[in-house]
Amino acid sequence: MRVEIWSDINCPWCYIGKARFEAALEQFPHRAEVEVVHRSFELNPEAPAMAEPVVPLIAAKYGLTLDQARSAELRIAANAQQEGLPYLTEGRDAANSFDMHRLLHFAAEHGRQEQLLDLLYRANFAEQRSAFDGARLVELAVAAGLDAEAAKAVLADPDAYADAVREDEATAAALGATGVPFFVFDRRLGVSGAQPPAAFAQALEQAWATRPVVPLLAALPGTDGGEACGPDGCAVPPRGQG
Amino acid sequence: MRVEIWSDINCPWCYIGKARFEAALEQFPHRAEVEVVHRSFELNPEAPAMAEPVVPLIAAKYGLTLDQARSAELRIAANAQQEGLPYLTEGRDAANSFDMHRLLHFAAEHGRQEQLLDLLYRANFAEQRSAFDGARLVELAVAAGLDAEAAKAVLADPDAYADAVREDEATAAALGATGVPFFVFDRRLGVSGAQPPAAFAQALEQAWATRPVVPLLAALPGTDGGEACGPDGCAVPPRGQG
Repeated sequence: MRVEIWSDINCPWCYIGKARFEAALEQFPHRAEVEVVHRSFELNPEAPAMAEPVVPLIAAKYGLTLDQARSAELRIAANAQQEGLPYLTEGRDAANSFDMHRLLHFAAEHGRQEQLLDLLYRANFAEQRSAFDGARLVELAVAAGLDAEAAKAVLADPDAYADAVREDEATAAALGATGVPFFVFDRRLGVSGAQPPAAFAQALEQAWATRPVVPLLAALPGTDGGEACGPDGCAVPPRGQG
Repeated sequence: MRVEIWSDINCPWCYIGKARFEAALEQFPHRAEVEVVHRSFELNPEAPAMAEPVVPLIAAKYGLTLDQARSAELRIAANAQQEGLPYLTEGRDAANSFDMHRLLHFAAEHGRQEQLLDLLYRANFAEQRSAFDGARLVELAVAAGLDAEAAKAVLADPDAYADAVREDEATAAALGATGVPFFVFDRRLGVSGAQPPAAFAQALEQAWATRPVVPLLAALPGTDGGEACGPDGCAVPPRGQG
């Protein structure tokens, strides 16, 4: 079974939702047969490249005072803490996450997507130093087990893995996602938001219980296609055909 | 859209079917949005590690004379040739393919699965030298862009990626596959065998046309889960909750 998780590094509920999903997966009896794939979703593709402090950004977005924005961050931090996740309520920043998503696709090609995603979340939500910085991103890529020069080359070329990010986003739209985190089980069942672990457990059970034997498309009329090999050997075309 | 292809290196119809599928994919208008994943299927998990000549094997399996077995190979070769694939009808051998499948999973982690699979097929079906040999497999891994020492380490450890191979095979069984090649479109539609390109084109069209907006699982009653971030910002828990 495959679970695809759309998320953005700028999204605190993605950070929290990932931990909640993992808590459910840890208890799932068939967890060894669950493959998790992380997919890109930019909450704000127009966000500036230069990082800005989060609290004033929130205040402006919701029409809050700075104190009210700080309170909102504290309440999100309390949710993070319940999942054992560190969360910095003062001094975080936010910026365009496109380069992070491109780097995550590069990491996926080298089997290091999960490692890099966790490091990006930690860097963004729990560390004072900005994660929106090329040199920092290379450090995080190396910490995830990737090659520094290769990571630099990816970051230096804005086209590298750009199509992969756009494709993830197009797929999310096609599947009906309007926000993140967005969890999709075998392309048949979706879960939106940082649900409690019990909801993810239910989704895992339901997707598992209803996993289909796929219907076979019949061979086209008039063709003799469909030759296959099975335990008893391979189909051999009749004499005069080949 | 994701297409999973179960195959075995020992399977000539997998070699031919892959080319036929690719011919259809090449013409598919949405091919940029199609992801292809290759999955493991051992036709004979009990096959000996030591390679044996194919023609006598076929003769024994089907109760044919050696000349009849050679004719059968020639007819399969004619099918290969129609797809532009070289095919050696004399001197090929066969053996246990488990190590090849383990190596393909290692290659997948490094984004080199497709390259290695094509090289394995060529080595097995079109080259005199046996592909069922550790040193040859390392050469092919390097030709596919993988690290020689890492490939050697995978081959030397029989547990490396063994679970990944077994999982692919369990999934194939769960999906109803009894032979290969077996093509599955988004886990919703299956195609068995080396169908003509027109059948693969039809399957691509049909899977694309019916790709679903996934139904959303509702939040569990009694929870306030499902907080998400969207284009307009992130949900903020109400005061007194966090």
